[in-house]
Amino acid sequence: MSSGLHTGFDEQEYPHINKGLDGIVAFSTTKSFIDGKVGDLIYSGYHIDTLAENATFEEVCFLLWNDRLPNSQELEDLKAKLIDKRELPESVLNYIKTTSTDAEPMSVLRSAVSMLADSDPTFGKFDEALFMEQAISITARIPSIIAAFDRVRKGKEIVAPLKEGSTAFNFLYMLNGEKPGEQAEKTMDLCLILHAEHGMNASTFTCRTICATMSDMYSAVTGAIGALKGPLHGGANTAVMNTLLELAEQGDDADAVAFTKKKLENKEKMMGFGHRVYKVFDPRGYHLQKMAKALSEETGHENLYRWSMDMLNTMKEEKNIDPNVDFFSATVYYSIGIQPDLYTAIFAMSRVSGWTGHFVEQAANNRLIRPRALYVGEKNLDWVPVEER
Amino acid sequence: MSSGLHTGFDEQEYPHINKGLDGIVAFSTTKSFIDGKVGDLIYSGYHIDTLAENATFEEVCFLLWNDRLPNSQELEDLKAKLIDKRELPESVLNYIKTTSTDAEPMSVLRSAVSMLADSDPTFGKFDEALFMEQAISITARIPSIIAAFDRVRKGKEIVAPLKEGSTAFNFLYMLNGEKPGEQAEKTMDLCLILHAEHGMNASTFTCRTICATMSDMYSAVTGAIGALKGPLHGGANTAVMNTLLELAEQGDDADAVAFTKKKLENKEKMMGFGHRVYKVFDPRGYHLQKMAKALSEETGHENLYRWSMDMLNTMKEEKNIDPNVDFFSATVYYSIGIQPDLYTAIFAMSRVSGWTGHFVEQAANNRLIRPRALYVGEKNLDWVPVEER
Repeated sequence: MSSGLHTGFDEQEYPHINKGLDGIVAFSTTKSFIDGKVGDLIYSGYHIDTLAENATFEEVCFLLWNDRLPNSQELEDLKAKLIDKRELPESVLNYIKTTSTDAEPMSVLRSAVSMLADSDPTFGKFDEALFMEQAISITARIPSIIAAFDRVRKGKEIVAPLKEGSTAFNFLYMLNGEKPGEQAEKTMDLCLILHAEHGMNASTFTCRTICATMSDMYSAVTGAIGALKGPLHGGANTAVMNTLLELAEQGDDADAVAFTKKKLENKEKMMGFGHRVYKVFDPRGYHLQKMAKALSEETGHENLYRWSMDMLNTMKEEKNIDPNVDFFSATVYYSIGIQPDLYTAIFAMSRVSGWTGHFVEQAANNRLIRPRALYVGEKNLDWVPVEER
Repeated sequence: MSSGLHTGFDEQEYPHINKGLDGIVAFSTTKSFIDGKVGDLIYSGYHIDTLAENATFEEVCFLLWNDRLPNSQELEDLKAKLIDKRELPESVLNYIKTTSTDAEPMSVLRSAVSMLADSDPTFGKFDEALFMEQAISITARIPSIIAAFDRVRKGKEIVAPLKEGSTAFNFLYMLNGEKPGEQAEKTMDLCLILHAEHGMNASTFTCRTICATMSDMYSAVTGAIGALKGPLHGGANTAVMNTLLELAEQGDDADAVAFTKKKLENKEKMMGFGHRVYKVFDPRGYHLQKMAKALSEETGHENLYRWSMDMLNTMKEEKNIDPNVDFFSATVYYSIGIQPDLYTAIFAMSRVSGWTGHFVEQAANNRLIRPRALYVGEKNLDWVPVEER
């Protein structure tokens, strides 16, 4: 009894399918505003340029969590709490020490953040009063997880977190085993600010969708890490660096223009270009480009910057596509000595501030997120016993 | 320089917000069809009644993964592979043995599934040829994770998986340390069939959203578990049982009608009632109700069934709301001796078949899932130094 192709929509046989939910407005938010046509990005009232020039990552966390900047006392309190929570529970350290050293950093981060729930007695409570403490705790521990795993896989001792210093400073210290210079700290801090929040991207949307079942913040951030990991989202910055390193194999006089054209001819995807929302240069790109230029000169990686500019110009000429945030962040991270496969995890270390801000916003005005699908299969087929199939 | 309330939509100042994405069609699918008006549910061509009467859970897995039923050889192959993958990697067993015995089963399941990725060398590859093996491996191991953690937290030895028998049979064996009777196996198998797939629910949608960044199947299933955990989704079956147990405290002659009316008067949410899609009795409910009645009589839990019917009738009279799939599954699981806080994890053990089916479907015709949000905050505020705030 096959009745052919059917749909689940009796009143309207083939409804419009909003593939990718393109242009569908699903929320109102006070977390960020993006004007893709002119290239504006605002976090809770402040333009990204204003924040890049003036703020610290900790101030941006407070801003995204409270929709206003902290006063001195509030900022000191937040910093103290973040420092206080840096240490990892024994169970998470054990996991990091014993898992495969070949594991992907984003995969380890996803498991470790998920495990953090077990040692937080408040984790399962969907309670507004607890959300902020949970957000602080997760934000404080992500850098510790990334640094600890990177040390372990390199056969080095895990470095205990500092009882002082900014998130950026402590992360570089835990990663390298020595305190970073002012320039490196500033660079890392600015990278954290620039990646903190960006509207309804796939990981933030995942975070809100999980929140909306009234699950818990650990579940939501774990899911968001899984979404960010994909090369169509945060995974792109690692892919950009791998492309640059592929080019670097051709030696110092490698031709980035020819390399890019060849990739385009072969219909390979050029990572780090194009964005669903921005139709012009990504406003975060300017700050990263400036940093990439200065740092690559300072650290003797001028080639990387030159090749990046050649790629960028070629992409603009050939395809009229601009680079996105991932494009220059690759060169920046590489120049301060961070291994390419950590870039996406560092993205998570920053974006967790936006995710948790959105979680709180979703919880305050919640509705289960459940779109529909159009069924295009058959209906009411008769059963055929297995031996007759 | 506050410029008041602004939106990100210049052309259309306050666009319609599709809160919860209600009624928005985001995908086409061959996985399931729901007609909420008449109460029909179809998995890849077959009505849920047909499957409940004829199929095994393993056949349903094959169906959801291939959009057709397996022949004898294919079914034997799938069963053999599922049996072969039941054992847990050492790292996951270590985690289960050492984490807090107070941890929530769904939280442990989320972490353990995430950790499975580390021991699968293929995990990071977004490659159609590998998806089916990954789906089989995750589906085979979820029951082992749930049973192992339940044993550990009860101070019992972990039971090694059987090298034979159905998923349902082996799960009950690993949980209880003894082989289940035919009736218990059949009940568990039917529960697995009834929960396997259900359109674009929040966890399946989470799974597809993570897949769409081209992340990986472990990330997607981990995220889906986090979404299912919420009481507005899979977490409801545990909540139903807790409500019944609350009533049971009033003794054998507890009055479920008065109890329900009081809850309604106090504006408490009655878990297990109402559904976004079904406007009539959930078709899965009939099968579960039949089982609940038979099992509760057999096992001396007649009260539970009687109270359930009183609640159901009161909710229908007072609010005209029908029970959903979670309502009778609570009594069924309780009657076969499963502890309430495992019910949502058992839901995951079944739904993983639908999640992974949707993952493969999404990957085959992919587009990044990224709706928009309406910004309702301020814009371009001037920076104020911290000491002046």
